[in-house]
Amino acid sequence: MRNLIWLLVLASAAGCAVEAPAPAENAPVLPSWNDGPARQSIIDFVERTTTPGSADFVEPEDRIATFDNDGTLWSEQPMYFQLLFAIDRIHMMAADHPEWNDQQPFKAVLENDNEALIASGEHGLMQLLMASHAGMSTDEFAQIVSDWLGKARHPRFDRPYSELVYQPMLEVLDYLRANGFQTWIVSGGGIEFMRVFAQEVYGVGPQQVIGSSIELEYEMRDDGPVLVRQPALHFLNDKGDKPVAIERFIGRRPIAAFGNSDGDLQMLQWTAAGDGPRFGLIVHHTDSEREWAYDRDSHIGRLDQALVEAAERGWTVVDMERDWATIYPASQ
Amino acid sequence: MRNLIWLLVLASAAGCAVEAPAPAENAPVLPSWNDGPARQSIIDFVERTTTPGSADFVEPEDRIATFDNDGTLWSEQPMYFQLLFAIDRIHMMAADHPEWNDQQPFKAVLENDNEALIASGEHGLMQLLMASHAGMSTDEFAQIVSDWLGKARHPRFDRPYSELVYQPMLEVLDYLRANGFQTWIVSGGGIEFMRVFAQEVYGVGPQQVIGSSIELEYEMRDDGPVLVRQPALHFLNDKGDKPVAIERFIGRRPIAAFGNSDGDLQMLQWTAAGDGPRFGLIVHHTDSEREWAYDRDSHIGRLDQALVEAAERGWTVVDMERDWATIYPASQ
Repeated sequence: MRNLIWLLVLASAAGCAVEAPAPAENAPVLPSWNDGPARQSIIDFVERTTTPGSADFVEPEDRIATFDNDGTLWSEQPMYFQLLFAIDRIHMMAADHPEWNDQQPFKAVLENDNEALIASGEHGLMQLLMASHAGMSTDEFAQIVSDWLGKARHPRFDRPYSELVYQPMLEVLDYLRANGFQTWIVSGGGIEFMRVFAQEVYGVGPQQVIGSSIELEYEMRDDGPVLVRQPALHFLNDKGDKPVAIERFIGRRPIAAFGNSDGDLQMLQWTAAGDGPRFGLIVHHTDSEREWAYDRDSHIGRLDQALVEAAERGWTVVDMERDWATIYPASQ
Repeated sequence: MRNLIWLLVLASAAGCAVEAPAPAENAPVLPSWNDGPARQSIIDFVERTTTPGSADFVEPEDRIATFDNDGTLWSEQPMYFQLLFAIDRIHMMAADHPEWNDQQPFKAVLENDNEALIASGEHGLMQLLMASHAGMSTDEFAQIVSDWLGKARHPRFDRPYSELVYQPMLEVLDYLRANGFQTWIVSGGGIEFMRVFAQEVYGVGPQQVIGSSIELEYEMRDDGPVLVRQPALHFLNDKGDKPVAIERFIGRRPIAAFGNSDGDLQMLQWTAAGDGPRFGLIVHHTDSEREWAYDRDSHIGRLDQALVEAAERGWTVVDMERDWATIYPASQ
């Protein structure tokens, strides 16, 4: 899907203790952010766009903020969580598919043979995704994802994936909404995958989740109509197609955009190019202790050109290690 | 696009006076509706889904109502208004396209040769639509549509197209929103075409307009990024693809759906098949005096199977002549 690199980073991550310090006291907003220019830039932007009479005041209907998901709202290592879901699901489905024992890329998944998995290439990745994500109704798929989220654990942190969200970003989402912003997710992840947890985890309802999608087909069955997920890609929400999806789903240009990789660059450019006050933010993964440290050379969440443009255009770059007092919320 | 029948009904409609009676007095809601079962069914549904403690109470976030546009919120005769836009635009662009004088289907449009136009078939229709709807940025297209709406006049009523909306349906939209419903447009019409007037005319913001779409491409120009409309269909929002689009854009099943043709049948089925209280309504065009009368045999807005199912499933069927005291709003 996004591309082959979903498969490339199967390296195990060394375990380490999770730190989840309590929110700083007396911090009225963004308590999990350390004081500094990143935190201050968010507060300044919100204050000048929402203070009546301010030269930069923005009407509520135009207060649209878009957020990438993988690497921006939750972690994306050792690989995109949705790919881990696909792999888990291939294992779960294997009993009904004896032919997979001799058929790549399924054989590679079942044998944990990363080399063969990588050798299956982009075509193999698509086969895995379609086998694991298609063939059921939309309701059935939501149940499958929900069940998986309820029991799967991250290999490094041994926590549910839905707890590996960034506490400081949850606070940004809340802070923006408290100030009349609409918060939208604009991610390369699957739209129906993310909707299963976006409301509960991010406070973002289904109609404000934009993602990649596969084809759906309306089918009238004896007990009523269903939408059946088809094994064919409908839309890949990445790079220049993020502004395209924003135009289609929202129909208004965001005034604030949050990302972490070159896949978010066009969304940030599109957001920044509008009239009036604009805000761009990039989460730079700099914390190998509490999370991960990667940028230009990473196969997942590669951050290169967007980091250069961020400096040129004055977008906020979050240094995760320096700017975030807390990474993940406390365990539930 | 929708199909060849966009082109088939070029028959001129006989002119007739527009009646726009004043709203009935003492009518608290839906004043342009005559008393009767259609009006009452709407009020009953809204009251039982919004009265706290009612067995049929529906939480506000689930109060989603979807509306077809052509033939449901505004007229669609003598042909879809967007096709009239396309034809007008071909005329306007002709000076820059001398080759069109000898090239079908453009020649047929320029010569008002309906027979040749129809003979150009679905392929010809698509050529017309792409020539008139693609090749410019999204901002430029919105301006073109806006300019057209400002000056074009309907051939029969000599009024701007945006005034040929149904006053009773405007009241339904308002009434639903006043009761905490979200009102969405789910139309075969072009999403970027409808957004130009949907906010002002229907009170429906761009992010609640779902329609057909063509491909967009992100392009970085010297003066910044643009989204360029490509001459290729992305999504045709009709029939079984209406529930598909509803799932993609809204991610929740509507509890109320409003349509007028067989193209809306699957949206009504999908809406009706959910749990809890459900409402379906079909506008039946029965008023050849004040609007038009057509159903089973019409090439535009054909209403056949959906009328049968409406009776079987207890959906409300609006008899336009009987149920609507007013058709169009007073001239502005």
